[in-house]
Amino acid sequence: MTLKNRTTLVAARTWMQQALPTTFGFKVAGWLDAIDRHRARLAETQERCLVLQFGGAVGTMAALGTRGLDVATNLAKELQLPLPELPWHSHRDRMAEIATTLGLCCGTLGKIARDISLHTQTEVGEVFEPVSNGRGISSTMPHKHNPVTCAVVLSAAARVPPLVGTMLGAMVQEQERGLGSWHTEWETLPEIVRLTAGALHHLTTTVSELDVDPERMRQNLDLTQGLIFAEAVAMALAEKMPRHEAHELVQKACKRAQSARRDLRSVLAQDAIIKTSLSDAELDRLFTPGNYLGVADQFIDRVLASCTAHRDQKKPRKK
Amino acid sequence: MTLKNRTTLVAARTWMQQALPTTFGFKVAGWLDAIDRHRARLAETQERCLVLQFGGAVGTMAALGTRGLDVATNLAKELQLPLPELPWHSHRDRMAEIATTLGLCCGTLGKIARDISLHTQTEVGEVFEPVSNGRGISSTMPHKHNPVTCAVVLSAAARVPPLVGTMLGAMVQEQERGLGSWHTEWETLPEIVRLTAGALHHLTTTVSELDVDPERMRQNLDLTQGLIFAEAVAMALAEKMPRHEAHELVQKACKRAQSARRDLRSVLAQDAIIKTSLSDAELDRLFTPGNYLGVADQFIDRVLASCTAHRDQKKPRKK
Amino acid sequence: MTLKNRTTLVAARTWMQQALPTTFGFKVAGWLDAIDRHRARLAETQERCLVLQFGGAVGTMAALGTRGLDVATNLAKELQLPLPELPWHSHRDRMAEIATTLGLCCGTLGKIARDISLHTQTEVGEVFEPVSNGRGISSTMPHKHNPVTCAVVLSAAARVPPLVGTMLGAMVQEQERGLGSWHTEWETLPEIVRLTAGALHHLTTTVSELDVDPERMRQNLDLTQGLIFAEAVAMALAEKMPRHEAHELVQKACKRAQSARRDLRSVLAQDAIIKTSLSDAELDRLFTPGNYLGVADQFIDRVLASCTAHRDQKKPRKK
Amino acid sequence: MTLKNRTTLVAARTWMQQALPTTFGFKVAGWLDAIDRHRARLAETQERCLVLQFGGAVGTMAALGTRGLDVATNLAKELQLPLPELPWHSHRDRMAEIATTLGLCCGTLGKIARDISLHTQTEVGEVFEPVSNGRGISSTMPHKHNPVTCAVVLSAAARVPPLVGTMLGAMVQEQERGLGSWHTEWETLPEIVRLTAGALHHLTTTVSELDVDPERMRQNLDLTQGLIFAEAVAMALAEKMPRHEAHELVQKACKRAQSARRDLRSVLAQDAIIKTSLSDAELDRLFTPGNYLGVADQFIDRVLASCTAHRDQKKPRKK
Repeated sequence: MTLKNRTTLVAARTWMQQALPTTFGFKVAGWLDAIDRHRARLAETQERCLVLQFGGAVGTMAALGTRGLDVATNLAKELQLPLPELPWHSHRDRMAEIATTLGLCCGTLGKIARDISLHTQTEVGEVFEPVSNGRGISSTMPHKHNPVTCAVVLSAAARVPPLVGTMLGAMVQEQERGLGSWHTEWETLPEIVRLTAGALHHLTTTVSELDVDPERMRQNLDLTQGLIFAEAVAMALAEKMPRHEAHELVQKACKRAQSARRDLRSVLAQDAIIKTSLSDAELDRLFTPGNYLGVADQFIDRVLASCTAHRDQKKPRKK
Repeated sequence: MTLKNRTTLVAARTWMQQALPTTFGFKVAGWLDAIDRHRARLAETQERCLVLQFGGAVGTMAALGTRGLDVATNLAKELQLPLPELPWHSHRDRMAEIATTLGLCCGTLGKIARDISLHTQTEVGEVFEPVSNGRGISSTMPHKHNPVTCAVVLSAAARVPPLVGTMLGAMVQEQERGLGSWHTEWETLPEIVRLTAGALHHLTTTVSELDVDPERMRQNLDLTQGLIFAEAVAMALAEKMPRHEAHELVQKACKRAQSARRDLRSVLAQDAIIKTSLSDAELDRLFTPGNYLGVADQFIDRVLASCTAHRDQKKPRKK
Repeated sequence: MTLKNRTTLVAARTWMQQALPTTFGFKVAGWLDAIDRHRARLAETQERCLVLQFGGAVGTMAALGTRGLDVATNLAKELQLPLPELPWHSHRDRMAEIATTLGLCCGTLGKIARDISLHTQTEVGEVFEPVSNGRGISSTMPHKHNPVTCAVVLSAAARVPPLVGTMLGAMVQEQERGLGSWHTEWETLPEIVRLTAGALHHLTTTVSELDVDPERMRQNLDLTQGLIFAEAVAMALAEKMPRHEAHELVQKACKRAQSARRDLRSVLAQDAIIKTSLSDAELDRLFTPGNYLGVADQFIDRVLASCTAHRDQKKPRKK
Repeated sequence: MTLKNRTTLVAARTWMQQALPTTFGFKVAGWLDAIDRHRARLAETQERCLVLQFGGAVGTMAALGTRGLDVATNLAKELQLPLPELPWHSHRDRMAEIATTLGLCCGTLGKIARDISLHTQTEVGEVFEPVSNGRGISSTMPHKHNPVTCAVVLSAAARVPPLVGTMLGAMVQEQERGLGSWHTEWETLPEIVRLTAGALHHLTTTVSELDVDPERMRQNLDLTQGLIFAEAVAMALAEKMPRHEAHELVQKACKRAQSARRDLRSVLAQDAIIKTSLSDAELDRLFTPGNYLGVADQFIDRVLASCTAHRDQKKPRKK
């Protein structure tokens, strides 16, 4: 398993502001890691929830006399479904768990789509949905290329959570067969399945064909005129003075840089205190984004290894 | 493991109408079986979701240079938490799964509370919350004894599902740290935990001290003047004539009984066709609720065995 | 405007327990009063929300040059829709208000359906959905008559609220046209309209043909063996002794009556203190449900007068 | 009433892509127009919903004998609250309407906050929350200035909608006093009020002190190298050839410009067909953003006039 753009530099954004450099590979590894957990959840849900339901009017199978359990056992065999401990038609946790598991999937799909939609803004321009067959073309604005997959997925990620709430609320069923609560599930669960499947289908295609612009990513890292390296500088300084002083010193330099519209490196180079602590060579190193990535790459390895292991574990089951 | 009132006869209700006889033990076995699945879900969630989160500003641990993974490994040991593949602070599926698992629990708690609240109605009077310390007393109506645990639990079961939806919706976080979405979790998840824990606490106490009135349950089985045995009769008849004919014959007899306010057994005994198919002795047998319980008792055994097994499996883990 | 069963006595239930006597007319007046408020809400929503939306790609009507407002004015005339102050396609409060107003309607419809479903339980048997054309017949239990309108309406009242939440959440649209949020409305609002219209349609028919059993209502008032008159007795006693003492005295009598399975009136008649305060004639009066209805009847008059006035006000508008 | 930055040019974005030029004043007029509708809604809700509720245990005021209506009338006078037609404690549409009206408000507040958060991104840099007292400062990254008001408001706009759903769902109350449903409101409505009030408070301050950068807005309009004027050109061409042809011609020119990384105007100026239809002077006019604003300014006037009128209407009421 490999990742395209594994080492491509890109600005990490927190609170919708550039924060520090990271790699696009690290971001995608985060997506992948989440998807890998959903695989595990889906397997657990499948095992627990896709079981026989057969119980007659109130679960006792009274109409079958003493043969109930035999009939159920054979029916389960016929349908290749596990036989549960007892009929469960008024205990809807199995139906609701299908909903919650798909709801969790949709949340991650929505998170990925939100990321893409932010990268694809005109002013950011780092990542684009693949263009094909007029997909995303505007009817009036000839230059527009709308991220339609993101729209589909974000819409699903907005619609599914309340529907999951509906399924959970409908678990409060009356006695041996609910009135209204049971009927609440009829259209809701299929809608959850449909929306999740649609979002997954569209996002899978889009992610695998994503159009990434490493050059623009690199340019955007320069947009703040070096402010994005402020933490790196503060950390380096903090090895030579109290951490609080270092933080304050860099914060002031940031403000000077911003108000004078100058780049942070040159402001720092002129600061009397800072230049005694950090040499030009050190500053050069600090203002190189590839030098402030921590252990991003090791984390990517961990994720790839884990996903590969899980994929391999699954194979035998599929026989 | 044993069940109080295991064989106590009670009317099973579907669509809020008396349907067939069942046992109170069978109903409680259904509750227990659902709770047993929640135990399994909670264990899975605990294993997957209660892990270390430590990643610095954007997950790369850049501020720690190359030591990030070592620090994380040691911190995880210190806190006795598993070390995840990579930091996950902008992937909220773990937080959201805690919410969904508790949401599923609340649904079952609400279902049990709804059942109790229906049994405890003045006109039904079969099951009561334990009376103690003025709990449930009305300030103006001296005779009232309100099912306050049911109110607490039903309220939690109504409030938690939309909050779970909130957690799922908040998964759509922007880039390396969301704006608003992350903050949406801050009060929501604690509220879900608080409501679920409160509901569980109150219901656990109430269920274990539930005041059951087997005599009233038996009386209520007679309320329909035998109509509750209509399916039993139709099934018995169906062994001697086409099923459809049997169903129609009994349905007509039910209508005659209802309009004349007579009991179904005597109406059937006078029906020319039916009395050739079913002898008096057979009718006696059919109108005995304990004879129309199917395999309810075997199902109870299955549930008790399964719960005992799961309980025993868990013990070693607790060391 | 008149009400069927206006003075029919029935037990009022609070916390799903018999509380005091009331009239069925008073209950229906409550339903009617709520519906009357929804009429007013629908009129306000219609006036505010059903207006022209026409603004070109971003609301400025740039493609029409300086003619935009003229074109919009004429289009509004053509469509007989009010012209709003400015195009509003990224401000979705109008769409969302349609959802909230229908959501409020559904809540009341659900409340009425819940009431009916509780009255129609086998053990209560006071009110029934009209039987027609096999509606509500069970496929296996020949005696069943399920309240299917209640199921439809309660299901709508459970499904619509989260969908309203979806519409409110989708108001957070990006800039001049949202991504995903806008698309979230596309299936959601029609679903809200469909569910509300369906619930209204079914409930309207059912309520107008409701099968009410005044005799059974009267019998149920006797189920508590007089406990339902406890507040009446306590209030009468409170005119002759401190209120707290009166309450406690009656509460004790209630407990004695319950534990001895005796009727409250006879227990009270034997109580040394009470019999000096309340004569036999007074007790007779207190244990007559029609004597403890307060000003229920005057309230009904107020509601009928108000609804009639609103209905008459509306007529001229329909020209 | 006047608007700051009324004529400041800014890119309008649809689907999170630059679409056409607009003015910041036009955008703010849209915000204002929505807020003006909420004022009207709040007034209606206040009038309909803030009324007396006084009805005794079941609404009949039985404990007050025949004096009920008099007592209620006097109590209403005392509290300066309107007297409703009848007690309404089991009809919760009034409580739920307070929730829906506040929910609608929150939606608009969230939309405004989303707009601000998008404008304030590092790569857009057009609008900033006011900096004061260390608000929005990061604990580790010295250069960060987080839009904390947006976080607060977006969080409220995400949390309130499901809570509104909870209030609507809780309208389904049993008989004369619900079990659980009523209790569901107790913490939910205060939470809605608190979240809405908090969001309104923070956003009001922030919007009035918003730091707008007209120069950066103007620069961003140039980011697409003229693509943002594509619709303007297509519309101008469409007066000289069939609309479809014009659209296609411009679309092709857009693609050539994008692939060659050239500006659209020069590509158009070299196109054989286009240069016969549009002179250099015409192209100059078309590529001037202030010339493609349609009737935005007239719409602003309409909104300001309407808000002023509504504000003046209200004044007398406040006496």
